Amino acid sequence: MIAAYSATSQARVNAALETLFTAPGPELARLYEAMRYSVMNGGKRVRPLLAYAACEALGGKAEQANGAACAVELIHAYSLVHDDLPAMDDDDLRRGQPTTHKKFDEACAILAGDGLQSLAFSALLDPRLSNADAEIRLQMVSALALAAGPAGMVGGQAIDLGSVGLKLDQKALEYMHRHKTGALIEVSVKLGALASGHAQKDELKSLQTYAQAIGLAFQVQDDILDVESDTETLGKRQGADIARDKPTYPALLGLEAAKAYALELRDQALHALRPFDAAAEPLRDLARYIVERRS
Amino acid sequence: MIAAYSATSQARVNAALETLFTAPGPELARLYEAMRYSVMNGGKRVRPLLAYAACEALGGKAEQANGAACAVELIHAYSLVHDDLPAMDDDDLRRGQPTTHKKFDEACAILAGDGLQSLAFSALLDPRLSNADAEIRLQMVSALALAAGPAGMVGGQAIDLGSVGLKLDQKALEYMHRHKTGALIEVSVKLGALASGHAQKDELKSLQTYAQAIGLAFQVQDDILDVESDTETLGKRQGADIARDKPTYPALLGLEAAKAYALELRDQALHALRPFDAAAEPLRDLARYIVERRS
Repeated sequence: MIAAYSATSQARVNAALETLFTAPGPELARLYEAMRYSVMNGGKRVRPLLAYAACEALGGKAEQANGAACAVELIHAYSLVHDDLPAMDDDDLRRGQPTTHKKFDEACAILAGDGLQSLAFSALLDPRLSNADAEIRLQMVSALALAAGPAGMVGGQAIDLGSVGLKLDQKALEYMHRHKTGALIEVSVKLGALASGHAQKDELKSLQTYAQAIGLAFQVQDDILDVESDTETLGKRQGADIARDKPTYPALLGLEAAKAYALELRDQALHALRPFDAAAEPLRDLARYIVERRS
Repeated sequence: MIAAYSATSQARVNAALETLFTAPGPELARLYEAMRYSVMNGGKRVRPLLAYAACEALGGKAEQANGAACAVELIHAYSLVHDDLPAMDDDDLRRGQPTTHKKFDEACAILAGDGLQSLAFSALLDPRLSNADAEIRLQMVSALALAAGPAGMVGGQAIDLGSVGLKLDQKALEYMHRHKTGALIEVSVKLGALASGHAQKDELKSLQTYAQAIGLAFQVQDDILDVESDTETLGKRQGADIARDKPTYPALLGLEAAKAYALELRDQALHALRPFDAAAEPLRDLARYIVERRS
């Protein structure tokens, strides 16, 4: 079920994203090519799926969340481009392909990442991709800026970099993940919900609880896969996190306890969705899928 | 005159900026410190001045443009942090102080720059700094994203990097500058004008012509100063552009013709302001100052 919904979401967001990479002049062709390369790479589009599914859970049409879906994917893509840089994680491969600075060069990758962040805000307000009321769109911009910024995703990356080689306890590890990956997952759900045009405060609160739980579950499962999966399935070096002495849930809790924790988080997510009807089924399917996936 | 207006603008924007660098937790202290270091560095605040002066030229109060002023300065600051990175211009000094990646480290500088860009959008909509109508604030966000992004400033940096060692003609050089520095100067004026709450279409058009002329004049004068000034006055290595074989106006036109061109651009800027009354005097003073400054 989630496979079909995911395929539809991927097609929808990819079609919307494709409209954003037309260089305004030949001088800018390489930059736009680097941005396009960094985004149109067969990504799973989990964050766009969340935006679409949250919009539909509140009775909106998925298309209303096109701007939100593009925006969160562009932020995600830029963060990966910068995260892969030599001064950061120094990765050569991303989903089995050369990372942006390997395919182009380091300066180009820095600028492509910078450009993708700006483009996210443009996409969020692109009249072709969004039609919510002005007040709602303003809320969306503020939420995205907060989630992407130093108090959100960028802050999480800074904490992560500062924690390599440190012995984090579970609280510190979760604080890091709640910023590094959680903030953007949360805002994907929030933007999708807002894009529906009639998100109520209590609904937003329930969806936030859901998003926090699956965000953490996603990370715990990622850590588990880093231990269990092989390089080919994962598209990156297996054991890469352990090799870097990064703190992980299996390292902290043990592999079995980490697996039990992922299931507990899934249940928390499903519990938070109890007030919603069948329109929230894709969100429920995703919560189940996250802890079952093998890559 | 411009000195007094500039001092007031500096104090105003610095006070507003100071409110933005409080780390939400001790784990984020270093990132926020790096962002603060990159911004609170004695910068001239030309772009905030433009925002304030454009707001006042249309009868607004300068304070109404606080969000706009902070936003454009944060974008400017982030672009310098990334521009100074080893993979880009590889500069050790900025205004006589160690660049952010020298003071902190490269990863921290990449993230501080990324965070400053998000923070710019947060600041633009910060209710403490902005109170324009929702529709106007949305226009401001879209304009900032466009000007900062790949079709604006980031695009200009990409063109600049691609042009090192090339023989650009005047048209190609201006195309680069219109993106690299011009787009942000233009949007500084536009955001300030919009923040006044009653910018008319023809007024925005006149102010755009003004901004394009002073943006170019600013760049021409910068190139002239790179030839003429000494390192101490300039706060960066004199002749740095020439040493890198970057295209400059003096190299292209000759020093005297470059000076004459700067004056011609000043006159174009003043001409564009003819429809405005005495409230536009700071904008006029700035146009005069740009081509007279020695650093």
